Amino acid sequence: MRLAELGELKTIEMIKKITSAPRLTNRASRFIKVGIGDDAAVLKEGNVVTTDAYIEDVHFSLDYFSLYQIGQRVACGTLSDIAAMAATPIALFISALLPSKLEQRQLKQLYAGMLSIADKFGCRISGGDIVAYPKLGLILTAIGKTRTPKLRSTAQPGEYLYVTGFCGLAETGRLALKQKFPKKDFIQSIKRHTCPCPRIFEAIKLKKYINALIDTSDGLSTDVFHIAEESRVKIKIFADKLPMHKETYNLYNWVIAKSKTTPQSVVQKMRTKLHTRAILQPLKDEIASHTLEMTNPLALNGGEDYELLFTSAYQKLPAKITGTKITRIGKIEKGSGVYLIKDNKEIRLYPKGYDHFQ
Amino acid sequence: MRLAELGELKTIEMIKKITSAPRLTNRASRFIKVGIGDDAAVLKEGNVVTTDAYIEDVHFSLDYFSLYQIGQRVACGTLSDIAAMAATPIALFISALLPSKLEQRQLKQLYAGMLSIADKFGCRISGGDIVAYPKLGLILTAIGKTRTPKLRSTAQPGEYLYVTGFCGLAETGRLALKQKFPKKDFIQSIKRHTCPCPRIFEAIKLKKYINALIDTSDGLSTDVFHIAEESRVKIKIFADKLPMHKETYNLYNWVIAKSKTTPQSVVQKMRTKLHTRAILQPLKDEIASHTLEMTNPLALNGGEDYELLFTSAYQKLPAKITGTKITRIGKIEKGSGVYLIKDNKEIRLYPKGYDHFQ
Repeated sequence: MRLAELGELKTIEMIKKITSAPRLTNRASRFIKVGIGDDAAVLKEGNVVTTDAYIEDVHFSLDYFSLYQIGQRVACGTLSDIAAMAATPIALFISALLPSKLEQRQLKQLYAGMLSIADKFGCRISGGDIVAYPKLGLILTAIGKTRTPKLRSTAQPGEYLYVTGFCGLAETGRLALKQKFPKKDFIQSIKRHTCPCPRIFEAIKLKKYINALIDTSDGLSTDVFHIAEESRVKIKIFADKLPMHKETYNLYNWVIAKSKTTPQSVVQKMRTKLHTRAILQPLKDEIASHTLEMTNPLALNGGEDYELLFTSAYQKLPAKITGTKITRIGKIEKGSGVYLIKDNKEIRLYPKGYDHFQ
Repeated sequence: MRLAELGELKTIEMIKKITSAPRLTNRASRFIKVGIGDDAAVLKEGNVVTTDAYIEDVHFSLDYFSLYQIGQRVACGTLSDIAAMAATPIALFISALLPSKLEQRQLKQLYAGMLSIADKFGCRISGGDIVAYPKLGLILTAIGKTRTPKLRSTAQPGEYLYVTGFCGLAETGRLALKQKFPKKDFIQSIKRHTCPCPRIFEAIKLKKYINALIDTSDGLSTDVFHIAEESRVKIKIFADKLPMHKETYNLYNWVIAKSKTTPQSVVQKMRTKLHTRAILQPLKDEIASHTLEMTNPLALNGGEDYELLFTSAYQKLPAKITGTKITRIGKIEKGSGVYLIKDNKEIRLYPKGYDHFQ
């Protein structure tokens, strides 16, 4: 069977299975506390390690990103995995696939972008590798420090589910840019898309409240699914609690404004090569029926928000931390699966993140 | 200026300069002992970290490598950087660019190859990332443990230069495979090319004798150059001491045998897209003049031997360690530059490794 048929989640599952055979853990297990499966691996002496690959035309396009922005974005995405362990980043390693037609000044901008983020969070670019390659690619490894990492596998029935910031904000920005909607109506969402600041400081401040933790990179429903699976619990999400930014409503308004003339063609245009299929089908249905509901598919499936998604025994948390909104959006129960609670009905959700292989 | 004109070494130099600005070292310097510039970065609590990128048609070809062999090779190459710090590997992180047409069983073979090497050296595959991409790519990060890492920057005048194994053996195997010379005459060299076992155990056993250390991945002359540059010393290599395997002579014999009929076409055929230009020009000259000298260009410029190259205050070391030959090939002096001593003449050498960008 080809990977195209197997799909991304099952491919990862297969790799996990192959590499986690017990025979491997003998000597290494003295040093490694958590291996494959969480946002980062945990070494026993208190380092967490994560690695992320970003490839041109898969994760970013040179059409509307500057090299500086790409540098910022990949560094943010990688450090978000360190935030997702509630650790402090210390070192960043960069393997770069570089087109030989790249200009020296472009390379400088790329690294300046990554440096600006590394600087902001006090970590250092400490190594890497370069390879000449027709497409730009950046593979980052980050090392963070913490003696008490937060995992995705420790959620307990009775806890509450929280998220920082807004759901679907980055995807709102991406679609607005892609559709060339007026930028002034999408300032925050475009910023979240182009430079999704990792919640490092927030994670450290919230740590005392947090039990299980993950970052929202694949889309809320998929990331909640990861917690539910790894913790072997059932999670309910309350549809009317999902924090949505007014710019996400702006997006809807713009889509509707356009769709009044030719709804089909708008949706057609919006169906890009990137990961919008899962979002656009429901959107199309909604436009067709002229019902716009509060439960926004963007909030559930829009990826790359890089917010903190966590469980806590506390029923009430501060409304904001270092200026970032915190919202209680669900509840952990005994059982399995992820459910959306809407109009007193339980709707079972399945991961709908973008599958690279299909 | 484009990277194609700038070249690989200068591009790396530029990245080092950008990322090593003093402003960056404030908080991170509490944790990082050695940053960019050595085989691996050194964290203060005793971890070393290295990252390496291997891309299809740049570093390996699917034409004559099985997926299992590719897995072995990339793991060996990466762990060799851990050996080059005289550390013990504990964890391996794998970012894989995977063509979606890849078969599930091929993916299994690829990871089985990497696992076989990780197992051999007692380290564990602890994380990674996958991306669908038309070409196969593997970007590996390895973490090793040592409280006393060996660096390339500590060579002292008066010391001796040593190398393990044979010089140019891997390149001999690569050319023999490429030219379809009879495999039975090239068993050791083909093995060194396809599965270049990192000298982890040797490095640990030799540690008490070693001062400065690097592995030979770019070709001996380039790697000696790195020690000379980073340690600010002059290094002499004695041409008649270079340890060459009998299979490297076999290669010459086969080339000559072929060249008797059409020397030009043989050389033409051997000029592959990969890194043989630097090797073949001298080879062509030699064939033309019918003089085959002991000082083999393969030994100086053939890459990917992954042997240990080190300086030591000891004038005499054991001839073998764990079955691996050790040869004294040079001397460290005050000054700068790398020189080949041949017929009592000093010939200045310059790095001749393969430049990906040019």
